[in-house]
Amino acid sequence: MHAVLDTSLSSPAVSAQLRAFLDDRAPATPCLVLDLDAVRANYRALRAALPEAAVFYAVKANPAPEVVRALVAEGSSFDVASTGEIDLCLAQGAAAASLSYGNPIKKAADIGYAHARGVRRFTFDSDGDLANLAEHAPGARVWCRFLVDAPESGTPFGRKFGCAPEMAVRLLARARDLGLDADGACFHVGSQHVDPAAWVAGITQAARIARELAERGVPTRSLNLGGGFPTGYRCPAPPLADHAAAIRAAVAEHFGTGVELLIEPGRAVVATAGVIRSEVVLVSRKDDADEHRWVYLDIGRYSGLAETENEYIAYRLRTAHPATPDGPVIIAGPTCDGDDVLYQHTPYRLPLALRAGDHVDILDAGAYTASYSSVSFNGFPPLPTLFVG
Amino acid sequence: MHAVLDTSLSSPAVSAQLRAFLDDRAPATPCLVLDLDAVRANYRALRAALPEAAVFYAVKANPAPEVVRALVAEGSSFDVASTGEIDLCLAQGAAAASLSYGNPIKKAADIGYAHARGVRRFTFDSDGDLANLAEHAPGARVWCRFLVDAPESGTPFGRKFGCAPEMAVRLLARARDLGLDADGACFHVGSQHVDPAAWVAGITQAARIARELAERGVPTRSLNLGGGFPTGYRCPAPPLADHAAAIRAAVAEHFGTGVELLIEPGRAVVATAGVIRSEVVLVSRKDDADEHRWVYLDIGRYSGLAETENEYIAYRLRTAHPATPDGPVIIAGPTCDGDDVLYQHTPYRLPLALRAGDHVDILDAGAYTASYSSVSFNGFPPLPTLFVG
Repeated sequence: MHAVLDTSLSSPAVSAQLRAFLDDRAPATPCLVLDLDAVRANYRALRAALPEAAVFYAVKANPAPEVVRALVAEGSSFDVASTGEIDLCLAQGAAAASLSYGNPIKKAADIGYAHARGVRRFTFDSDGDLANLAEHAPGARVWCRFLVDAPESGTPFGRKFGCAPEMAVRLLARARDLGLDADGACFHVGSQHVDPAAWVAGITQAARIARELAERGVPTRSLNLGGGFPTGYRCPAPPLADHAAAIRAAVAEHFGTGVELLIEPGRAVVATAGVIRSEVVLVSRKDDADEHRWVYLDIGRYSGLAETENEYIAYRLRTAHPATPDGPVIIAGPTCDGDDVLYQHTPYRLPLALRAGDHVDILDAGAYTASYSSVSFNGFPPLPTLFVG
Repeated sequence: MHAVLDTSLSSPAVSAQLRAFLDDRAPATPCLVLDLDAVRANYRALRAALPEAAVFYAVKANPAPEVVRALVAEGSSFDVASTGEIDLCLAQGAAAASLSYGNPIKKAADIGYAHARGVRRFTFDSDGDLANLAEHAPGARVWCRFLVDAPESGTPFGRKFGCAPEMAVRLLARARDLGLDADGACFHVGSQHVDPAAWVAGITQAARIARELAERGVPTRSLNLGGGFPTGYRCPAPPLADHAAAIRAAVAEHFGTGVELLIEPGRAVVATAGVIRSEVVLVSRKDDADEHRWVYLDIGRYSGLAETENEYIAYRLRTAHPATPDGPVIIAGPTCDGDDVLYQHTPYRLPLALRAGDHVDILDAGAYTASYSSVSFNGFPPLPTLFVG
C-alpha cells in the first residue's frame, strides 16, 4: 500500500455538515462523529445498485441505536449476531420479522429467546446448531452457510464460518426433515472484499447446492449473499456497481430468475459516514539521528481502531496542515501496550509541522470502531459517538 | 508450544476457595473469578524474592478496585498509565506519593492533572514529554526509559517505548537543567519475559547511562526495572527466584550498593489468581470427514481474551471430563468476526465427550483480560469479574 496522505481539509469524504460540526463544536477527543444523512445515502445507494436484493444491515458494523433507528425508517431489515442485538433492534422499532439471526454460533437458550421475541430467520452451519434450531425455533426459515472457495478478502474469515458445500446439502435436507423451512444457502466472501469475482465463485457453488437439493426433492427459494462490499480506505475499492454487475450476471447464469436475493452489508452502510477526531499526544524520535518520527494519538487499537490489527485497514488521515512538507512516521496509540501501534509497516507520512495538541482526523471510520472499544484498558474510557444529520 | 492439556479438576493452579465458589455458586458465564488471597500471596512472594526492590503494581494488568484496595493494604505502590488509573488508585486509598505515572505518552493537561492530585514520579522517553513535565510537574522525580537491547519477550514491545541509551543520557541531563529531579534510568524487558538474561542486559546498559551522567555531574539514585516477570501458562516459566538472582547479581556487578531498586510487576501479581469460566456454545466440524473439531466458547478475543492475538498466550484449559479420550481442536470465540479465533496453530486437544453447555475453565486468567473487553462488540456484554478471598 502506498497511497498518498490526504491532508486536504476539503476532502469530499467528509460531508459539509460533519465538517461544520467538528469546526464549530470542537468536541473533546477522541470521538467518532457519525453523519446519519450519509448512512441513509449509503443505504439508498446499495438499494439502487442492487434493487433485486433485500438489505439486512449487519448491526455489528455499528450498533448505535441512532443508526438502527435511521435504517428502520429507511425500511431496512437487520442481520443480528446476538440476543443483545435483537433487543437493540426491537427497541429501535424494527419488526421481529425483519431480523435475521445470522451468527451460526448460538447457545440453545439464545435461539429460544430469539424465537420467543418473534425472530423467524436463522443461519447455521453445523449439526449441533441445526438440532437446536429444530427444537427451539420450530418451523423457522434457515440458511446454511457454506465455506466459499474464493480469492482472499482484505480481512479474511479463515475457516471459522461455513461448512463444506456437500455438507451444506446434507444439512439443508436434514433441516427440511426436522420441520424447518430450508430457505437456501448462504455465504460470505469476507469483509472488505475488493474482487467482484469472489461473489461469482460463491454464487456458482450456491447454485450447485440448490440443484443437488432440488434433485433430492428439497426445493430452496433464496440466496443470502452476505456482506463484504468494500470501502475505499487509502487504496480505492471497485465501485458498488461493479460488484452488483458481477452478482447480477452470475445469478442470471447459475440461478436464472425466481431466486430471492438478500445481502447483509455493514461496512458499506456506515464506514464512510464517520470520522474519528483524535489529538496528537506526542511526536518523538527514538534516536536523535532517526529520520522517522513516532506520532502518538489519543486513540489506539484498544479504544476503537481494532481493525488496524496487522494493519489490515489503512485509514486515510487528515490534518490541519495541508500542503506543507511531510516526512515518514510510525503511528501509535496512547496505552502502555507495545502492540498498540497502528502503522509501522504501511508507509505513512505526516506534516513536519505536526505538534502535540493538533488534531488528526481518521476518515471513513464509521464501521467496526466504537463498539470494539475496550471498557477501560489502561484506564482510558471507551470511544464516544456523536451524531449529525 | 506443545504442553499437554490440563484436564485435572484438582489442578493446584486453582485455589480451594475459588474452586468451591465455581462449584457452589455456578456463576453465569462467561466470567472472571479472582481470588484476592492469591493476589496478596503473589504480592508477598514478589516482596520475598526481591526484598531490596520497591513494588509498584502495574494497575493496567487488572484495574479492579478490589485488587487495588487489597494491594494498598499490603503496602504496595502503583504504576499508573492514565489519569483514569490515578483517580482509581486514590479512590481506593492509595497515597499520591505511592503513584508513579509510568506512561511516557501523556497529554500536557494530564501531567498537570496528575501533579495537581499529588503525583510526583513520572517516566518519560522524549524531549516533548520532558518539556511538558518541566512545565506542568515542576521538581518531580523522573525516570528516562531507554530501549533495552535484550532477547525477545513473549509479548515484545517492539520499539514503541524508550529512546536510545545515549539519548537517555542527554535527556536526563536536560531534565536536571530544567529543574526536575533526574532519578535515573528505566527499562522494560517486555511482558512475559522468560529469559532472566534480559534483565542483565538492561541493568548493564542502565549502569552505563548512570556512569555517563555522573561524569557530567548529574548523579542519579535509582533504577526502575519495570515488569515482565513471567507467568507459566501452558509452558512453564523460570521461577521468580531465577529472575531475582539474575537481577541481584547484575546490580551488584554494575551498580554496587546504594542504588534504589523498583519493579513494576502486573501479570506476576494477578495472573494466577484468576480463572475465567466459559461455556461451550457449539462443537462442530467443517466437513464430515474432518478430524479436527471446532470448539466455540462464549468468550473470545473481544470479550477478554485479547492476549490470544497471534496465540501469544496459550492458556491452560480445564474441563469436567478428566482422563477421557481427547482429540485435536480449533478453539474460537462466539462473535461473527473471522479473527475471533483463539487457537488454530497452537495444538490443543479437548475431550471427545465435550458438548455444548459444558464448562471450560481458562486458568491463570487474572491479568490483561476483563479490562480489555469490548463495550459491546457483536452485542455481547463485557466480561464481569467476581471475587473471592
